Amino acid sequence: METISENRAFGGVQGVYRHRSVATAGEMTFGLFLPPAAEKGPVPVLWFLSGLTCTHENAMVKAGAQGWAAREGLAVVFPDTSPRGDGVADHSDYDLGQGAGFYVNATAAPWAPHFRMWDYVTEDLPKVLFAAFPVDEERQGITGHSMGGHGALTVGMRYPGRFASVSAFAPIAHPVASDWGRKQFGAYLGAEEAVWAGHDATLLMRESGFPGELLVDQGAKDQFLHLLRPEALAEAMAARRQPGAFRMQAGYDHSYFFVASFMEAHVRFHAEAMGA
Amino acid sequence: METISENRAFGGVQGVYRHRSVATAGEMTFGLFLPPAAEKGPVPVLWFLSGLTCTHENAMVKAGAQGWAAREGLAVVFPDTSPRGDGVADHSDYDLGQGAGFYVNATAAPWAPHFRMWDYVTEDLPKVLFAAFPVDEERQGITGHSMGGHGALTVGMRYPGRFASVSAFAPIAHPVASDWGRKQFGAYLGAEEAVWAGHDATLLMRESGFPGELLVDQGAKDQFLHLLRPEALAEAMAARRQPGAFRMQAGYDHSYFFVASFMEAHVRFHAEAMGA
Repeated sequence: METISENRAFGGVQGVYRHRSVATAGEMTFGLFLPPAAEKGPVPVLWFLSGLTCTHENAMVKAGAQGWAAREGLAVVFPDTSPRGDGVADHSDYDLGQGAGFYVNATAAPWAPHFRMWDYVTEDLPKVLFAAFPVDEERQGITGHSMGGHGALTVGMRYPGRFASVSAFAPIAHPVASDWGRKQFGAYLGAEEAVWAGHDATLLMRESGFPGELLVDQGAKDQFLHLLRPEALAEAMAARRQPGAFRMQAGYDHSYFFVASFMEAHVRFHAEAMGA
Repeated sequence: METISENRAFGGVQGVYRHRSVATAGEMTFGLFLPPAAEKGPVPVLWFLSGLTCTHENAMVKAGAQGWAAREGLAVVFPDTSPRGDGVADHSDYDLGQGAGFYVNATAAPWAPHFRMWDYVTEDLPKVLFAAFPVDEERQGITGHSMGGHGALTVGMRYPGRFASVSAFAPIAHPVASDWGRKQFGAYLGAEEAVWAGHDATLLMRESGFPGELLVDQGAKDQFLHLLRPEALAEAMAARRQPGAFRMQAGYDHSYFFVASFMEAHVRFHAEAMGA
């Protein structure tokens, strides 16, 4: 593993690291914030999965998580959103290919060799993280924004023993019924829709839900509401009696200003669930 | 004046606006955060002047000021760092020309027609701001980062009746004795060094200081310490018995992670001085 940069931030360290990933068969870059408490021993870790067009860097720079994480004694890990590089397939659309991994393991050409972001965030990166840094594998939470909210909800519900808490900011909530989902699942996973179901937060909520608390914030003026489909997830959460909250935030759009505005609440939510 | 964007943030509004400036003889863009309290009447305003290569956007996105400003009931205004556009002189160096206005009124060719950032931040933009938005001209504070810290200190000390409080993050503290200063003052103001003195925070501190509290934070691992010359300002502050503090922050570099880490302290410092 290679250290790209380390900056002192809020008494801790905001690092950027590069490593070889088996899952994506290439080099991957991620950000990791370690709070001051990590100097004394392993700390709980919050995963932040990012949205379309983002790299590891966007949330790290714009979401304002580090100050709250420093106070609560949490690490925050910021994975990239796809494999990247010259030998990696891509597409001219912003919402397919590099920057748009959708947190699935692609099985269809030309994506299958590298686009395995599900395995990357659930297997590969955890191995690197828990081997190399003072973070506690027994205390994990997961969150994300937009496509990353979709990732956080689906990974969280399918690994209920791993995560103490799950949250999302404006997630793509029902991708099997949205152009943010059908297009990408068709490309990455093929035409058989039955295999898409394991990557749809609304369907997973209907089927199993999450055993802990689950928090979703959604801006009421989000310009992508028709693609996010929050009403499907809200209905499924209520029907399942899912502990937690779906909150509609008046006036907010889809930007990082929205994410930053509610970051304190999400960090505190996870810290409490993880016993930070 | 034209509204470029408005995003709900921390219960307030992060706006971006464009207007015609007399001082710079062209269109200028600025950011303005209005806290929720501005819905009820005029609020105090904190000026944030940015550094080399920045536009109005960098601090607005990366410095994490809005959350604290919302709590304290302050507006924050983010001016651009220079005139811009096709008819505006420029230079291939990152630290001269567009993005590097240095908060002076250029008198030398080819800069004189547009590079009048001193007048822009002290006359033009205040007129626009106080006419168009619910901000209180009687309650102003000023801060900035790097070149913007230089701007904040020099503007603040030369308008002592206007600002209740002055602060800076890693300011260019003694530009007449630095390559971040001599080069630009020579280009913008000409070779006569006597006219540079009004734009040097250390010289102004020696001559007059600031009647209120003045706060400076500087990272001890800043990669530009040899250009910033903080020791000259620290000495001048102590020699003048300037109320306030010069703080050397162990481990921090010159990045926005440093700025964001101490933003809460600076916003609270200004809020207290302005009676927010």
